[in-house]
Amino acid sequence: MIDLISSTHNPKIKNVLKLQEKSSERRNQNLIVFEGNRELGLAISAGFKIRTLFVCPEIWGDEKIEGVAQRDIFYISKDVFDKIAYREGSDGLVIVAEPKYLSLDTLVLNKTPFLIILEAVEKPGNLGAILRTADAAQVDAVIVCDPKTDIYNPNAIRSSVGCAFTTQIVASTSEEVLHWLKTKNIKSYAAALTAKEFYHETDLASACAIVMGTEATGLSEKWLNEADQQIKIPMRGQIDSLNVSTSTAILAFEAMRQRGFHND
Amino acid sequence: MIDLISSTHNPKIKNVLKLQEKSSERRNQNLIVFEGNRELGLAISAGFKIRTLFVCPEIWGDEKIEGVAQRDIFYISKDVFDKIAYREGSDGLVIVAEPKYLSLDTLVLNKTPFLIILEAVEKPGNLGAILRTADAAQVDAVIVCDPKTDIYNPNAIRSSVGCAFTTQIVASTSEEVLHWLKTKNIKSYAAALTAKEFYHETDLASACAIVMGTEATGLSEKWLNEADQQIKIPMRGQIDSLNVSTSTAILAFEAMRQRGFHND
Repeated sequence: MIDLISSTHNPKIKNVLKLQEKSSERRNQNLIVFEGNRELGLAISAGFKIRTLFVCPEIWGDEKIEGVAQRDIFYISKDVFDKIAYREGSDGLVIVAEPKYLSLDTLVLNKTPFLIILEAVEKPGNLGAILRTADAAQVDAVIVCDPKTDIYNPNAIRSSVGCAFTTQIVASTSEEVLHWLKTKNIKSYAAALTAKEFYHETDLASACAIVMGTEATGLSEKWLNEADQQIKIPMRGQIDSLNVSTSTAILAFEAMRQRGFHND
Repeated sequence: MIDLISSTHNPKIKNVLKLQEKSSERRNQNLIVFEGNRELGLAISAGFKIRTLFVCPEIWGDEKIEGVAQRDIFYISKDVFDKIAYREGSDGLVIVAEPKYLSLDTLVLNKTPFLIILEAVEKPGNLGAILRTADAAQVDAVIVCDPKTDIYNPNAIRSSVGCAFTTQIVASTSEEVLHWLKTKNIKSYAAALTAKEFYHETDLASACAIVMGTEATGLSEKWLNEADQQIKIPMRGQIDSLNVSTSTAILAFEAMRQRGFHND
């Protein structure tokens, strides 16, 4: 007979709810929360320290879970699980872990790096979608400048389907990133509708970064002025209709195409 | 003083709610419902017949609206608007219109067409995102085979940011589409993780269609077997992580790149 937490008033459960809802709690406690067995495996592989694993046996069953100490595993009722889990088709696991905050200096880069830089990304879902692209295209890192959402927002992790753990992510200021790019000889291409040069006529095979603005307002003057060059995707439709995650994917895969799909 | 509908029990409002919620109502009444001034303008330009325009003056103001007969305009209170509108940052307009159902035979195609074919698309949001790509890349048409959602689902229109009205959309059966492609000499490329040929080494500049499956299960055996060829996007990450709208955008923009961004 296992010990089952069946009340949402349980202090551990109340804390998970706080962590789900408030970036200030995540920051103060230095914890993140996410769901799913695949995500758990990717996080463990990436060296994230798992602090607590909540298992809903009614959904998960009784299969053993590798990589988490028994003392950190707690079992919860279906009602409690439904309260703390958000994803459709969840497999009964909710995980609390310590985030890994990389810095620009600790990034591990290939010889000819390709980076995605996002300015002030607002929607966690967009960040998640871009992390999926980053994984598939094996970009060296995703750098979020002056983020308005925390990079380990539960919605970002969820919509990344685990790619938040397979890609190096750094949050920093635009100022620092611009300086760092120069010291590393990495060319920056600011995506802008006003650019004259097309992305597919640009050399994306050399060490470079694409810099993407928000969907609502695009890039700031700072990035438009201080990036090495502006580039654009030709849009021939009736409206400028690509969203930021789609644009990012088109640019990243053109870079990979130019590199023969070898990023090294 | 304008006449303001302020009750959600008003029969017109009750009917809008039905149309928002039920595809069977949309089908039986042959009506669709959407929001926003840009969408209204694009729908009118595309020849959609507007049946009713609901205006919330508290949000919209008193600016005149072109293209809709005064007798078809009804004014609604903010409470009623909030009940029938779903989009964030709506501008106070909700529109009921007649859908346009094109058939394969009535499609207007360029000399060297490029088509997006979607099999059994399940999520209206994915359809909307793909319509944005279709607009930007100016694909000839989006063909939805054996749809599990109606192509004018309110969520699809909403997430298309109006591109549901700028792109030719046809719903048909896979059988009919395969036959039609042959008669038109349009080559079909089925996107599949099991394909041997890479998309960027494939001739997408000739008359062709890309065929995309669902995110959960991919393409059916029928399409995998009967399409002229299978192609894939190299994914070098830890998981097969691209979603269907991202994959579609990468393929569509590679086709446009090969065509020199002239689709004609």
